Amino acid sequence: MAERKFITFLSDFGYIDDFVGTCHGVIKKIAPEVEIIDITHEIQRHHILQGAVVLANTLPYMPESVILAVVDPGVGGQRKPVAIRTARGRFLVGPDNGLLSLAANRLGGAEEAVELACTAFALPHVCKTFEGRDLFSPVAAHITRGVSFEQLGSPLPVDQLEQAQLPEPVRSKDGITARVIYVDRFGNVQLNLTPDDLASIGAKQGGFLSVLHGDEGWKVPYVETFGDVAPEEILVYEDSYGKIAFSVNQGDAGRIFQIGEGNEMHFRTA
Amino acid sequence: MAERKFITFLSDFGYIDDFVGTCHGVIKKIAPEVEIIDITHEIQRHHILQGAVVLANTLPYMPESVILAVVDPGVGGQRKPVAIRTARGRFLVGPDNGLLSLAANRLGGAEEAVELACTAFALPHVCKTFEGRDLFSPVAAHITRGVSFEQLGSPLPVDQLEQAQLPEPVRSKDGITARVIYVDRFGNVQLNLTPDDLASIGAKQGGFLSVLHGDEGWKVPYVETFGDVAPEEILVYEDSYGKIAFSVNQGDAGRIFQIGEGNEMHFRTA
Amino acid sequence: MAERKFITFLSDFGYIDDFVGTCHGVIKKIAPEVEIIDITHEIQRHHILQGAVVLANTLPYMPESVILAVVDPGVGGQRKPVAIRTARGRFLVGPDNGLLSLAANRLGGAEEAVELACTAFALPHVCKTFEGRDLFSPVAAHITRGVSFEQLGSPLPVDQLEQAQLPEPVRSKDGITARVIYVDRFGNVQLNLTPDDLASIGAKQGGFLSVLHGDEGWKVPYVETFGDVAPEEILVYEDSYGKIAFSVNQGDAGRIFQIGEGNEMHFRTA
Repeated sequence: MAERKFITFLSDFGYIDDFVGTCHGVIKKIAPEVEIIDITHEIQRHHILQGAVVLANTLPYMPESVILAVVDPGVGGQRKPVAIRTARGRFLVGPDNGLLSLAANRLGGAEEAVELACTAFALPHVCKTFEGRDLFSPVAAHITRGVSFEQLGSPLPVDQLEQAQLPEPVRSKDGITARVIYVDRFGNVQLNLTPDDLASIGAKQGGFLSVLHGDEGWKVPYVETFGDVAPEEILVYEDSYGKIAFSVNQGDAGRIFQIGEGNEMHFRTA
Repeated sequence: MAERKFITFLSDFGYIDDFVGTCHGVIKKIAPEVEIIDITHEIQRHHILQGAVVLANTLPYMPESVILAVVDPGVGGQRKPVAIRTARGRFLVGPDNGLLSLAANRLGGAEEAVELACTAFALPHVCKTFEGRDLFSPVAAHITRGVSFEQLGSPLPVDQLEQAQLPEPVRSKDGITARVIYVDRFGNVQLNLTPDDLASIGAKQGGFLSVLHGDEGWKVPYVETFGDVAPEEILVYEDSYGKIAFSVNQGDAGRIFQIGEGNEMHFRTA
Repeated sequence: MAERKFITFLSDFGYIDDFVGTCHGVIKKIAPEVEIIDITHEIQRHHILQGAVVLANTLPYMPESVILAVVDPGVGGQRKPVAIRTARGRFLVGPDNGLLSLAANRLGGAEEAVELACTAFALPHVCKTFEGRDLFSPVAAHITRGVSFEQLGSPLPVDQLEQAQLPEPVRSKDGITARVIYVDRFGNVQLNLTPDDLASIGAKQGGFLSVLHGDEGWKVPYVETFGDVAPEEILVYEDSYGKIAFSVNQGDAGRIFQIGEGNEMHFRTA
């Protein structure tokens, strides 16, 4: 079997416009043999932190690849366009606004970085309003073809790269206050909590938790999966990315209880 | 030309989250040479019957493939994760909740089935809330690489597999009462009726039908295609999947007449 | 490296239904080695002109390919299904309603055209309500495999092909009146204006414009990119497809000011 080369691609471009398709075209024109895996293009508009979290969460499930990510509210502004080489010889391409940082950390950290210049490896006419198409996509494609990293731009000290900051849960004497970091299509509410955080307040799988959200509160079983509670019952569990989540079995917890990203939820044992 | 291997993939995952992209990553990591055709990932959330119908309807248009389908309200519950081998040597992978049944029937019926176990052919850590990623996707990928069916789990008698049940139209002395099984993006209303059903009440293409929906009723031409009536006129016709449909030429019948899935519509000759 | 063959595919099918996936299946069954680049499938329903504009705009970014495009309100009606060969030996397949015309012009103009017939290069049973699946997709696939153009149908004089008509901006003594041709996911408002049009009224990058929309008016800087104004400030600039656009930096101009496609906007120097 011939070696396959992959680009994994994440953005907030959405599918309504031609942005994703056009970037595919640009990549294929330079590197027709490369395969593109679209992680998602529905990161919430300009939501850098969400993009950074999803990029890092999905990384272990992806084949070895050049990572191309574009969530870029500052396009054309002061933030730098960059390419990063990590400890494990992996490459990431995108804006230097924190988006790439959590994934780079999971890959052993940035070892080398360049500020991308409009060299031969960009499109001939780089439009400052769509660098995803004119700079990041062609650079990612050229990396898969073996262009040497140094040719892509000028060196950038890795300690100057932007880092995304996840909010931390807050321990108090009567429990732990978490934040909602994501609500998915099924209404599952993902929190900035790990099973270890719940263990630190004495919670055990198989037991119950008291959960507060605004004026509402529930006594909720802390279980392994949906099927452990009856349909339409609430549950708390470790979700598929290792985070604690709050859901309704076969229901939409986000919509039913009006829980959105950034909301606070308080947990204690019950 | 080298042989190509395909996985055809249907789910209710949607494109907002990373679910589809992550499953692609899992498959490509195991079987980089396989090609994935996304049938659709916008099956209505948890709507097993819709998934089963779309999977069966589109089957004749797909190249030979391993079929991967996930619409799984009971994930982590009692329903079994399965792989099915059909009479024609084709494979289907997904939850045993009826989703695979109509497609399996079209492929000559299930000849052999296994209840999937968390063996070497699943991901190392199977999360009970995302078996699409951790169990179904890797198993489908391994099947394309030739793993022997028996290694995937324990045998399951094929007569124990769940069957999806499509509602049947009801004949009465003054016509036939059908149900809406699907309303598409263009507002075309697909019914659980075939041209034979309409023939059985004496309707002929080129003639007219009396159609009732709730309090509304219309006299509608039964024609071959949209262009046979003026723009904004109603028509009844055999749609592209061999079902009878009710539409407005260059209009959105579903929205205009507030017709939704599951609604009853009554047909008689006029 | 083996030669790669591409089909670039644009439609108004959306991703909710199986239409796109089914066309992929049809293509892959005929030409498993071909690669499909989905430009976008979210052209506004039945909006031929929008489809024609996006197809032409994205063309320079795509690898050499057979172009398959389906926005087809007249499916099954009088408009002809066609394939076009252009001056540069490129092929376009779709309905003859103007959709293909702007892209064909960019490729040097149509040199030869055929009205597609239901020959061996269509599916055996062509459904008149889904020619995208039954006629256009298989024909595009057969073209990538080298079928001779003449076999696809009967010759059609190229001067009989439909042409899409873009609205022209209107010069007056106090400026220029433009129309909104597209509003993208980020709320960027694209106009039927080029930098040359603005130059013709004396506007210069770095200066200011007076912009009117209905009862509202603004004095807006005419700049190169978003970062040239503060967040939430309005700007006018040349967008990534060479058109003049009106945006809010890190904001959604379309939604904030209720500007939609087809709206008039008036520009003069300020």
